[in-house]
Amino acid sequence: MTPGFTGSPLDRADRVRHDADTFSAAKGDRRAQLLVLDGDLPRVGDEGRLVWTSLTEAPDDAVLLFLGYDEDKPHFVAFRSDEKMPAARSPALADALDRLRTGEAATYAAARSLLAWHARNGFCANCSAATAIFRAGWGRTCAQCGAEHFPRVDPVVIMLAEHRGRVLLGRQASWPARRYSALAGFLEPGEAIEEAVRREILEETGVAVGPVRYVASQPWPFPAQLMIACIAEATHDTITIDPHELENAIWVPRGDVAAALAGVEDSSFLPPPPYAIARTLLDHWVNEA
Amino acid sequence: MTPGFTGSPLDRADRVRHDADTFSAAKGDRRAQLLVLDGDLPRVGDEGRLVWTSLTEAPDDAVLLFLGYDEDKPHFVAFRSDEKMPAARSPALADALDRLRTGEAATYAAARSLLAWHARNGFCANCSAATAIFRAGWGRTCAQCGAEHFPRVDPVVIMLAEHRGRVLLGRQASWPARRYSALAGFLEPGEAIEEAVRREILEETGVAVGPVRYVASQPWPFPAQLMIACIAEATHDTITIDPHELENAIWVPRGDVAAALAGVEDSSFLPPPPYAIARTLLDHWVNEA
Repeated sequence: MTPGFTGSPLDRADRVRHDADTFSAAKGDRRAQLLVLDGDLPRVGDEGRLVWTSLTEAPDDAVLLFLGYDEDKPHFVAFRSDEKMPAARSPALADALDRLRTGEAATYAAARSLLAWHARNGFCANCSAATAIFRAGWGRTCAQCGAEHFPRVDPVVIMLAEHRGRVLLGRQASWPARRYSALAGFLEPGEAIEEAVRREILEETGVAVGPVRYVASQPWPFPAQLMIACIAEATHDTITIDPHELENAIWVPRGDVAAALAGVEDSSFLPPPPYAIARTLLDHWVNEA
Repeated sequence: MTPGFTGSPLDRADRVRHDADTFSAAKGDRRAQLLVLDGDLPRVGDEGRLVWTSLTEAPDDAVLLFLGYDEDKPHFVAFRSDEKMPAARSPALADALDRLRTGEAATYAAARSLLAWHARNGFCANCSAATAIFRAGWGRTCAQCGAEHFPRVDPVVIMLAEHRGRVLLGRQASWPARRYSALAGFLEPGEAIEEAVRREILEETGVAVGPVRYVASQPWPFPAQLMIACIAEATHDTITIDPHELENAIWVPRGDVAAALAGVEDSSFLPPPPYAIARTLLDHWVNEA
């Protein structure tokens, strides 16, 4: 049960961010690797691996962001301030993710989230001045007010409510036909994970839940969420959907979930893709009985 | 085992943020309540409760942020753009937190994190223009580039490594004498919780860990973290501290942790305060044997 976007082989080597000499040496290392991207798409090479090139291929106006070491070789991604990173997945990106190995997708996820954050954070939210990259690419600093800014990660709860052998799944109007998945929502300031789980299920479906148990987590790089996957015990099964959030919500028995995950042709719904933690969560729930 | 800063009685009522009429009605409700703060300090009333007043007490130049309903009464906190919220706890605040009930501290935590975010986010990080509050206080919008910004929550992993009946605790040079606590650090883009736990323990103490299990979570309003508490199984016990992060790290046997939590006078260390989830984590570990 390895969630998607986990298991990057890179060592982030925090020391490089705090020592200008080490960072310079990494950039000057002849073995240094630069991630090859086509716009926001990873290039997928042999055996589902990312493709890398030498630092000499970086555009002249790019800033090199340090991703980490693999077998002592420093790895980078190039950031150009005029390049924006789309927040959502295109069909071409979904296709690339289907072909990328999990650990390689994890490296791509870190790079993508970092690029997207720089693209959207050129100015100081505290004082409005232009900010500059520091910490080997893992922060921005403001010369005007002195504020330091660090890449944002937004915690999201994603969860199944269960009731007498069935789980609660929802779908949004924009999703592919027949796709159903776990409910999800952003955790807010002042909330614990378990509180956010209860609030989101209640808001979206009117279902009240009691105990909440944590299952797994994954980074989700569209643009930079931490997905926290849980299972909650529903106290009743009456659904009242919030039409602003969901198009529909349904209770699905374990056998039907198993059939959908196995790809049975006339299953009651189409499950989320393998790299989404909702899939990990459904696999876990089917197998824990 | 209820972590600090959880259990607020307020219903955040997301619908109020999306409907101007409902928000106006809430602000016009004669029973509406305004949180009383002295600077950044909560006023602590009878039985460790927060103190509230009527909306007429809000300064003329303040914006009302909607916190939620309690027994159908709308509750607000007032934000003034020239008022900054210190990121750290003063001795006076630590004293107030010792006297505040857990559920009341949770309401204060949400209000404090929201105020601190507005104070530091008056400008659009995307384009530098001044932004305006929307969504009943739970966001800011930019009229220049159209970007929407939402309050930030930073996930932090906080954890014990265990090895043959002992746990790994650390201390920072700035802490009170003899205080030791769980290790902790910010989760980064592209990391799962379990990966951040492994990286932080290794970075700070040189200790490698295998399986990681989730224990509990809490919001931490200095300024807006989500603390994710875990226990990890160490594969060895050789400590090599990172002197930039820690002053010292020690392995403590279960009996010594129990004595410290019980307040025994000559215990081997002073534990973190009751409202910190490191305390919840130590209580959990002592009792799970």
